[in-house]
Amino acid sequence: MIKVGIVGGTGYTGVELLRLLAVHPHVEVVAITSRGEAGRPVADLFPNLRGHYELCFSDPSAGDLDHCDVVFFATPHGVAQSTVPGLLDKGIKVIDLSADFRIKDIALWEKWYNQPHACPELVSEAVYGLPEVNREAIKNARLIACPGCYPTSVQLGFKPLLEKGLIELNDLIANSASGASGAGRQANVANLLTEVSDSFKAYGVSGHRHLPEIEQGLVDIAGESVKLTFVPHLLPIVRGIHSTLYATLKPSPSSVDVDLQQIYEDCFRDEPFVDVMPAGSHPQTRSVRGSNICRISVFRPQGGDKVVVLVVEDNLVKGASGQAIQNMNILFNLPESAGLEAPAQLP
Amino acid sequence: MIKVGIVGGTGYTGVELLRLLAVHPHVEVVAITSRGEAGRPVADLFPNLRGHYELCFSDPSAGDLDHCDVVFFATPHGVAQSTVPGLLDKGIKVIDLSADFRIKDIALWEKWYNQPHACPELVSEAVYGLPEVNREAIKNARLIACPGCYPTSVQLGFKPLLEKGLIELNDLIANSASGASGAGRQANVANLLTEVSDSFKAYGVSGHRHLPEIEQGLVDIAGESVKLTFVPHLLPIVRGIHSTLYATLKPSPSSVDVDLQQIYEDCFRDEPFVDVMPAGSHPQTRSVRGSNICRISVFRPQGGDKVVVLVVEDNLVKGASGQAIQNMNILFNLPESAGLEAPAQLP
Amino acid sequence: MIKVGIVGGTGYTGVELLRLLAVHPHVEVVAITSRGEAGRPVADLFPNLRGHYELCFSDPSAGDLDHCDVVFFATPHGVAQSTVPGLLDKGIKVIDLSADFRIKDIALWEKWYNQPHACPELVSEAVYGLPEVNREAIKNARLIACPGCYPTSVQLGFKPLLEKGLIELNDLIANSASGASGAGRQANVANLLTEVSDSFKAYGVSGHRHLPEIEQGLVDIAGESVKLTFVPHLLPIVRGIHSTLYATLKPSPSSVDVDLQQIYEDCFRDEPFVDVMPAGSHPQTRSVRGSNICRISVFRPQGGDKVVVLVVEDNLVKGASGQAIQNMNILFNLPESAGLEAPAQLP
Amino acid sequence: MIKVGIVGGTGYTGVELLRLLAVHPHVEVVAITSRGEAGRPVADLFPNLRGHYELCFSDPSAGDLDHCDVVFFATPHGVAQSTVPGLLDKGIKVIDLSADFRIKDIALWEKWYNQPHACPELVSEAVYGLPEVNREAIKNARLIACPGCYPTSVQLGFKPLLEKGLIELNDLIANSASGASGAGRQANVANLLTEVSDSFKAYGVSGHRHLPEIEQGLVDIAGESVKLTFVPHLLPIVRGIHSTLYATLKPSPSSVDVDLQQIYEDCFRDEPFVDVMPAGSHPQTRSVRGSNICRISVFRPQGGDKVVVLVVEDNLVKGASGQAIQNMNILFNLPESAGLEAPAQLP
Repeated sequence: MIKVGIVGGTGYTGVELLRLLAVHPHVEVVAITSRGEAGRPVADLFPNLRGHYELCFSDPSAGDLDHCDVVFFATPHGVAQSTVPGLLDKGIKVIDLSADFRIKDIALWEKWYNQPHACPELVSEAVYGLPEVNREAIKNARLIACPGCYPTSVQLGFKPLLEKGLIELNDLIANSASGASGAGRQANVANLLTEVSDSFKAYGVSGHRHLPEIEQGLVDIAGESVKLTFVPHLLPIVRGIHSTLYATLKPSPSSVDVDLQQIYEDCFRDEPFVDVMPAGSHPQTRSVRGSNICRISVFRPQGGDKVVVLVVEDNLVKGASGQAIQNMNILFNLPESAGLEAPAQLP
Repeated sequence: MIKVGIVGGTGYTGVELLRLLAVHPHVEVVAITSRGEAGRPVADLFPNLRGHYELCFSDPSAGDLDHCDVVFFATPHGVAQSTVPGLLDKGIKVIDLSADFRIKDIALWEKWYNQPHACPELVSEAVYGLPEVNREAIKNARLIACPGCYPTSVQLGFKPLLEKGLIELNDLIANSASGASGAGRQANVANLLTEVSDSFKAYGVSGHRHLPEIEQGLVDIAGESVKLTFVPHLLPIVRGIHSTLYATLKPSPSSVDVDLQQIYEDCFRDEPFVDVMPAGSHPQTRSVRGSNICRISVFRPQGGDKVVVLVVEDNLVKGASGQAIQNMNILFNLPESAGLEAPAQLP
Repeated sequence: MIKVGIVGGTGYTGVELLRLLAVHPHVEVVAITSRGEAGRPVADLFPNLRGHYELCFSDPSAGDLDHCDVVFFATPHGVAQSTVPGLLDKGIKVIDLSADFRIKDIALWEKWYNQPHACPELVSEAVYGLPEVNREAIKNARLIACPGCYPTSVQLGFKPLLEKGLIELNDLIANSASGASGAGRQANVANLLTEVSDSFKAYGVSGHRHLPEIEQGLVDIAGESVKLTFVPHLLPIVRGIHSTLYATLKPSPSSVDVDLQQIYEDCFRDEPFVDVMPAGSHPQTRSVRGSNICRISVFRPQGGDKVVVLVVEDNLVKGASGQAIQNMNILFNLPESAGLEAPAQLP
Repeated sequence: MIKVGIVGGTGYTGVELLRLLAVHPHVEVVAITSRGEAGRPVADLFPNLRGHYELCFSDPSAGDLDHCDVVFFATPHGVAQSTVPGLLDKGIKVIDLSADFRIKDIALWEKWYNQPHACPELVSEAVYGLPEVNREAIKNARLIACPGCYPTSVQLGFKPLLEKGLIELNDLIANSASGASGAGRQANVANLLTEVSDSFKAYGVSGHRHLPEIEQGLVDIAGESVKLTFVPHLLPIVRGIHSTLYATLKPSPSSVDVDLQQIYEDCFRDEPFVDVMPAGSHPQTRSVRGSNICRISVFRPQGGDKVVVLVVEDNLVKGASGQAIQNMNILFNLPESAGLEAPAQLP
């Protein structure tokens, strides 16, 4: 059994790690830290875990993480970067769900996150944990930077088009919408049910922290610079991300006959967690609720030069904790789907 | 035009007063105070009011309330009791939406609200603003204590049974459920969409602050002591209270033939804001959403000795701001429905 | 008082007409027809109207519409076109909320609606009832074709850019999302709460009936042909449309210094129902819930050549029944805001 | 591997059986019938099952059920009673999720379900599948009648009080609320999102089909007749039942000192799927969403003679498909929790 530790287990990605790991056949959660909740049983904070965990939160200083094989950071940005080096020195693998090690350009990170980076020397070593792009590198990583929720959906959705060089790179649009759990478990008037429910809005149109992460990922796939307009929206639901992607096909002769459906199916044929829907289907976020699956459809409306790609994922699973476990499975040479096999809950 | 002031206009009862008063034909809102938001336009905080109000929040110390005919307190408990005497001395009427002047037994108030009362001498003068019970007293009041949201629904629902002496008084049950706006506009993890939506729970079963207020009101109507079990629940909706009331008919001979439907219709025939539904109907909270109407149905399941009463209201309107305006209309001898005539919004 | 009739009052646009007209100072609803519900009080079907209407549904054949000054059609497409000529012949004005008279190209209408048009001779006479574009023509119309809900939001959002000739016309994108009331009050598994709630999806990506209507409207404003990609989505809310519009600024020298905020404010300065939000604001659908207001924000992310426009409206009000009443007010020379003055309900 | 068949797999209890059985280690689903969807892959109707099942719906007449060890009926009432005898004759076990075999008094069944019973001779043999009451009988059953969703919650909640003889039997109240999935996957205006969401109502106060089933179960536990008032309500959520139960403690001397918390904990100590919450806790429906757990709290408000019991379950799991699988596990001598071990999904 692999010994797992979790730092910052009081948020939604923390409880989601615990939910998924409770049925993982090869893992034991041995430590979970929280400064504020030290001593409290996790099942007291999250009643869905009653009967599944005896574990209590422990103080980060208590050293409980030292006995782990791998530690997940389910913390706000800025926390992992100061603790990770010590763990790596002890030979412990780290999977960071936060933004601390995702962006390779440290000046860019510092601009968007508005603070100096405490550990720039590890940024280049960190492997960006998107298995559909970096599976080989993940196998040998010490430190994995798990992708953000929006970036996962946008990168997977554009990947086949970019790899085949089919689209104009200076005119990509990602119109995304996320459930409210993406904002975390923070006391905040703006996220009250009375403020969010029965409503819909865009936010961060002038600039969102996921924009540089997405652009970096698209450049990695395309091998060239890209220009992206990214508009996130807030959905009055708990879980789920839906990205509607727009791109323009290059006017090459081939674009007339290009079979987008075939290209998408070929690209993801061997992926355990990407499901290309039949032509003409519209994926729903509920079809992936609670599961690690990303479902994708591709359209060419009226046979014109626009491609529209629809992508759904559960922001807490494929967009966070499930993808982190998928990374762990790859890292420890376990079956990639271990612990992630349950179908989504519908209705 | 009656000059209205509002204290504490940044919460949901405050914005609801503003929404309703925007179309009131006999009223002008001339001042709204907030320590934290002084100087900010109300339409900036509440975008639904854009185009309806030029008004800015002012600091309570600025004296803007002095020019009002009537001041509404839309504040947490404990605020009105220290400010009200000064306003009354200036001849300004006060309608308090908070709990400060509702409970006549000051020791009881202090026990449930866990603080000394700052103004006990005004408690006995304050008129409990439930028009269906106290209309005459309201007309001549200086200080009106508006009923709580749960208490309004429970008192109206039991009123015909109590007045007619039809039920056992030691065995009343009020099983109530409220939308999340009842908890106010406070930053609180427990009221996030991610915590409340797609779920349902009871709370405060051991004791809720509305229990003594409801019992006091029922005693006033019955003229005898009563014993009530009150269990509130939290609904994953924004607005609306639904109370399901249970009582046992007295085993008098008359109870066999008692026509409950007729008794309810007779009791509320002249009330502009109580609607007794046709026999067999089940009122929905959405049928009163945004309106000052309280809808009631009465049942006697299988012809037995249990009476079941269903009551719905909008907790922010008949349960708070609408009822406060109804009180103002009575107090200033305006048509009782002025400004409160729009139908509920359905769907 | 203007005598109003409604055809097809059992759907959501019908009940919304009744809700809004209940407080309209210059109107009396004298007839409402429904084949299936003839004889039933409207307040029985829609309990929010109890106390506001004594009216019963009548059979369309009963002739009750003959005494009206104006008749609203709140029917599925295909109904109005067979009844309208008879009413016009009697000198009755008609405001059609359905799609029957919106599209000038009859072949195009027949292709998208998959049936022959029963009354092509009136199509050219019908005035497209978007007051912000056609106010003068509306004043003298006999037959008004009210715009669809999506088309209203998209046309208003693009209008300033098109009028000023600022954007490329062959690359417009409208990414829109609608509440479930847009699908009407039809028994349909796909629209059950259990299917729609806590989920989100696109639909009709291959082609939606509102596409030709939107394109026609954009062409009318631009005076040139346009190319639009339109992707509608289904929101798990009752009311509200949010359109996120994307366009590319022309590379003219002026585009560097163009003040989009100013252009939008200038364009809509005198419009009673279009509210341009302050720069940097993100409108929420709930800020217009129940009201006839359309709120718009305009962005130029990172100062690039993309313009992003955010538009919200209530699909049942500005997107249907409210706009119909606005048209009626213009047609009968009433104050344009009569009956439409109540602020949106928030929260 | 146990070979499982499902009759009527197009509803919510059908898809929930498939979801749960997809990860059951000892089971293979070999047949699923639907007259209307014969030939269609189940994963086409329910996209959450894509990648989990190759299975297609088959026509009931095709005989696919003959090779099963056990057949689940996830059908409306009236279907199982005509098909079950033939299956039993072939030695196939039957677990019926419908109401057909729950009520022992056939005249009572026929009264509430308003049709003659087609198979009265099997009613007395059928075992009522509430494991916490009938575990031993379930082990040897041929035909199991799975309890309804409301009845499960009410019987489990009252069980400790009835077994200990602590309460008055002529004055029980069950105030219950269910998510909309309890109404099934039927095209019905009343269950549209636009009708149910953001609202709450009681229904069936005059009489609900679950009343006789609940009373029968309570009598079985108490060994005496009981009198129950049952009021169901419709919650604007997908899944979850919350029952608030009221009873009066007998005025025996012992009731002063009775330790209700201890009695509940003792009663359910060995039950894998009943979780008695710590004293003072209020269970939430979301804490059991997707899981087979029933969570219970017990209160004695203000130390009076009323007991209030709060019970939550997922109506599709412990209230239907999960309980059916629990029954199957007992019947086939498998670990009782097999396939039912995943924690609830929270948030």
